[in-house]
Formats: sequence, structure tokens, C-alpha cells
Amino acid sequence: MSQYYMKKLDLESGTVDMTHGAGGRATNQLIAEIFARHLTNEWLDLGHDGAILPPIASPVVMSCDAHVVRPLFFPGGDIGRLAVAGTVNDVAMCGARPLWIAASFIIEEGFPFKELDRIVESMARTAREAGVAVVTGDTKVVERGHGDGLYISTAGVGERISLHPISGREARPGDAVLVSGSMGDHGTAVLAVREGMGFDTALRSDAAPLAAMTEAVLRAAPDVHVLRDPTRGGLAATLNEIASQSGVGILLDEASIPVRPEVASACEFLGLDPLYAANEGKMIVICPQDEANAALAAMRSFPEGSMAVQIGRIDDSGSVPASAVEMMTVFGGRRTVDWLAGEQLPRIC
Amino acid sequence: MSQYYMKKLDLESGTVDMTHGAGGRATNQLIAEIFARHLTNEWLDLGHDGAILPPIASPVVMSCDAHVVRPLFFPGGDIGRLAVAGTVNDVAMCGARPLWIAASFIIEEGFPFKELDRIVESMARTAREAGVAVVTGDTKVVERGHGDGLYISTAGVGERISLHPISGREARPGDAVLVSGSMGDHGTAVLAVREGMGFDTALRSDAAPLAAMTEAVLRAAPDVHVLRDPTRGGLAATLNEIASQSGVGILLDEASIPVRPEVASACEFLGLDPLYAANEGKMIVICPQDEANAALAAMRSFPEGSMAVQIGRIDDSGSVPASAVEMMTVFGGRRTVDWLAGEQLPRIC
Repeated sequence: MSQYYMKKLDLESGTVDMTHGAGGRATNQLIAEIFARHLTNEWLDLGHDGAILPPIASPVVMSCDAHVVRPLFFPGGDIGRLAVAGTVNDVAMCGARPLWIAASFIIEEGFPFKELDRIVESMARTAREAGVAVVTGDTKVVERGHGDGLYISTAGVGERISLHPISGREARPGDAVLVSGSMGDHGTAVLAVREGMGFDTALRSDAAPLAAMTEAVLRAAPDVHVLRDPTRGGLAATLNEIASQSGVGILLDEASIPVRPEVASACEFLGLDPLYAANEGKMIVICPQDEANAALAAMRSFPEGSMAVQIGRIDDSGSVPASAVEMMTVFGGRRTVDWLAGEQLPRIC
Repeated sequence: MSQYYMKKLDLESGTVDMTHGAGGRATNQLIAEIFARHLTNEWLDLGHDGAILPPIASPVVMSCDAHVVRPLFFPGGDIGRLAVAGTVNDVAMCGARPLWIAASFIIEEGFPFKELDRIVESMARTAREAGVAVVTGDTKVVERGHGDGLYISTAGVGERISLHPISGREARPGDAVLVSGSMGDHGTAVLAVREGMGFDTALRSDAAPLAAMTEAVLRAAPDVHVLRDPTRGGLAATLNEIASQSGVGILLDEASIPVRPEVASACEFLGLDPLYAANEGKMIVICPQDEANAALAAMRSFPEGSMAVQIGRIDDSGSVPASAVEMMTVFGGRRTVDWLAGEQLPRIC
């Protein structure tokens, strides 16, 4: 066909146009020179519309996420890292070893190849870090003004490694409530950039895959009842969901909840509560109290788990109503931690 | 929390707002009253961030698609039917039985609940028709002007049922090239609505899941080499991809290619070529010539396969260059069927 398509993509100053979503040669070129180049693996390289993969002898775990974070690049990460880590973590939180990722891209006309290339490279790096392969994908292009640069939807498949159910329904009175590190890093970092505080603060997203940490926790504390990553809505929304699904009360100790000083001050400045701000590289572990220390040690053996700590318990004294989350405050009082503070934090992941 | 969230969603005149993507109570309500209500199944109903599913003893097949079709409703289907059927078909075309679907929704602020409800209901209906379950999902909301009503990304997982490789690389000289029915129905129907021809024409999208038809073909013709659904770019783009991946020449017989009269006239009016227009409920089967009749009979046993026919062969005479597609025209001439006609048909699926 025309010479046009024979030239290599201009990764310095070229942009995506509608032909890149039309399913013809331009689409194939975009896939070959950006997507396949970074994400290469034996399955993706076959170039089929789907990937043909080995059998899975354990129960299969499947999860998915749409990623619409704004801006696309932020301190500590970008939409590509988020898209892989987010889905890897959702699969891991089901007590599974994540294996494969499928990724769909909705690209706005005019999006620079250079940014796309950087984002896909970041996905490839995050996938290697997590030990997963991006095995299949799809690319669509929408007209200028009908998107916001780039949206990435990822789905993940994994193999179950825990031997008993792990879910929000399994929290039991007396269980320990642990977190793997400081709360609110991701949401605060993204919002700070959006509010014009720039990249020069000490704030950094915690976006990271937690596959290896999850396996270590499950080996150390095989009776874990609940694993969850406190993303949108933060610790508060996630614990409320667990309290409600398990029909238990949760009692937190505010003083023990790790929040970085820079996150605390940024939250004060931005009018946020770090307990409601999203995390993208942290896990909540709820397990029998007698396994808490083993689970904490397992988390602390990873750099991103060095601040792991117990922050509360599933109430067994009847002092917290079922489905509620309460907190002993640093002032010695007690307050309800409800589903939502007034603020909304859209487009955070 | 506030009374607001205790009220049921107003499915008649309510719309999606930013709170429905914030991960709190409003998100949960949207999921419960629209998504979970229609898509209910044992896995989705657990309300976890991922689904825990049975093991898969055969090789696993995984595929994904972003759906950005415009308009969202068109004669013969809607984005919901397309999203399920498209991914089911991609999995089936790998020689697999589709089992589970993950669905991510990117909704533009202000999108009517009523339309969302209708689309999710259509997904549920198509999933039942295809024998698959939508086992997990995600919902994000973007501000007005940053989307186009609704984008749906789906990923699918299935179990391989064919015993040997089926892919675009497997076409062999002498093979028969079959299609399951008329070409160009989907692309023409969508473009006609977009061009103001309205819903009153006889044009209808063929959007349909092909899981059962694929199984029947594989039973009847176990040595099938290639299965593909000619979506974006139509028959022409798909056959060019196969010719190139297998390094073979393909020779078509124009007179045998089924095109509905209403599609042919609409294409003439719209300046399209039906061979480049998308299909969403048709399959291409490439198999040894001695299995062609069995495969055709299998397709014809389904209403949507009643027009199944052989349209050509993989060249074994050396008269078609490797990686090329040529066609004996109705006038007795011969022409190259190239990758792309000049037209682009964006947002067709």
C-alpha cells in the first residue's frame, strides 16, 4: 500500500490519528512498534485476537479495572503502572498468584506517540516486577474531545494459592486488622499535582504490584480471612465494605495508623482525610490475632511493607455496632468512620 | 449516611454523576441496582474485587476488546450486545469455549440511568445466549466532555476445545475459505444510522455470539486451521492478516461472497465496500478442502449461519503472491484485495 505506512512511527513528534484505530495497517503498525515492542512475550507475539495459555489446575481468579486517572503522569507513577499494578493487586487480594493481563486502550486522536510509548514501557516494567505477562490487547481511537488522552482497561487472571475462602465476608470477631504501610499516598500525590502543587513536593504515589508480598503473607499466615487493597475511597471505604459484608464491627486505633508527615500536611492543605485517600500499593490483612505477627513480619520483609502495622481489631466485645467502623482517636475519644467524607476524588485511578 | 443514598436510583429520569465513580456508597448503589441486578450469578454476587472461579483443565484462552461504537444503540444491537459478543467471539475463534467475561465501564457524567440499564440488560441477555457469565466488573465516571456517553471494555476467558493449533498462521495451500454468512451487515447498519439514514432501513447489525456455532464447526471439522471473526476492516483486512501471517496467497471468488442486497445498495450510497465493512456475528473458517462440506453443514444448522458458503481457497497453484489476497471478479477479471480501502470507519465497534 502507500509509502506512508512503510515509514516507521515518529516516536519523537508523531501523534495517534483515527487510522490507528481502524483495524488496518496503521493499527498493526502501532501495535508492532509500540505495544508489542515493549510487552513482548510468547503469547502476545503470536498476534492472534486472543492468547492461548497453559491450563490452570487451581481455582481461577479473574478481575478487571478501568483506569481514568488524571493527569496521566504523576510523582511515583503513571497510568500504565497503575493499570498493571491495580489489576495485579485485585487478583492477588483474592488469595491468588496473578499470571496474565489483558489490556484495552482507548486513545484520543492527537495523543503523542512519545507519551504512549513511555506509558506502555512503564506497563512492561511493572508487569516484569509483578511476574505477569500482558498476553493480549486491543486499541481503539476516539475523536478529539471524546476522551481524555488515554484510558486503559485491564483484566487479570490468576491461580488461587490460598486453601480456604478469602473475601470481605470472612472477617471474624477477634481478628487483627493490619495494613502494609502508610495510608493515602497515591490519592494525595495525584490530587496535589492536579491542584498545581507540582512534582516538587515529597509526595509520591505508592503504585506498586503486591503479588510477591501477598504470597509471603499467605505462606506466613495461612488462615488469613480477608485481603483487600484500599484503593478508591481509601481505608475508610474499604473497611466499611468489609464490616458490612461480614456483618461485624471494626475498631481502629487512630494513633497506630501510619500516615507520612508530608501526606498529613498536604491533606490538611487540600482539605482531605488520608483515611479516605486512595492507595495503590498497600494491602489490608485481616487474620486471626495469633497469626498477626507472622503476617506483619512477612510484609516487613519487603521494602514497600516496612511500615506494616496492626491498626485495629474486629470487635468481639459488642461495643461496635455490626457493619460499622469506629476509631479510638488520638485524643482518647471515639468516632464513627463513615463510608464517605463529603469530598469526592474523581479520576484518581 | 444521608437520606440521599437510601433512595432507589430513579431509573426513569436520573443520570450518572461523579459520585457514582468515587468508590463509596453511590458506586455500590449503582452496582447493586443496575449491574448486579441484571448480570447476577454466583461469582459476581460475592461482591469481591475479583471473581473466584473453577480450575480450567484445558489450555486457557484470554482475549479483550475496548468498545467505543457510536451511536450506542443501532438497528440489531447496542454497545452492550457488542461488548459481550465481540469478546465471546474472539475467545471462540481461538478454538475455545468461552466461559467468563470481565467488564469495565467508563461512563460520562450525565449519562441516563435508563440507557445504562437497557445496555446492561442487553449484556445480560447476550451473555445468557452465549452461555457465559459476567463474573466481575468495574465502573468509572469521567466528567462531561471527557467521554462519549459510555465506553465498555470486556475481557473473556475460555477453555480450549480444539486439539491442535488454530491461528492465522495455520492456513495451508489447498485449504477452503468459508464464511458463515453475509458480509458487511454491522458496519453498514452503524454507518447508515450515523449518516442520518435512521432506523427505518432494512439494515441490521449481525452482532451475535458465535460460541455454539464454533463448537459445532470444531466437532464437524476437527482439522480446522484458522477461525477468525472479520470485525474492524471487514473480510478484506482479516484475510490480508491471515495471508500475511501464514505466508500464503488467498484467491476469492467474488460471485460467491454473500452480501445482502440492502447492504450492497447502502454501501453504494455511502461509498463503502462491503468487504471492508465490519461484521460482528460472522466467522471465517479455513480448513482442509475435504472438511469444507461438514463445516458448512455445521454452520448452516444455526439460523445465523444459514447463508454459510465457500468463498475461495488458499492458493496452491502459485498464481497468487504470498501474503496477498486476490479475487476473481464477477466480470471474470482478477484484482488485488488490499488491506484498506481509502475510507476509515472509526468507532464502529
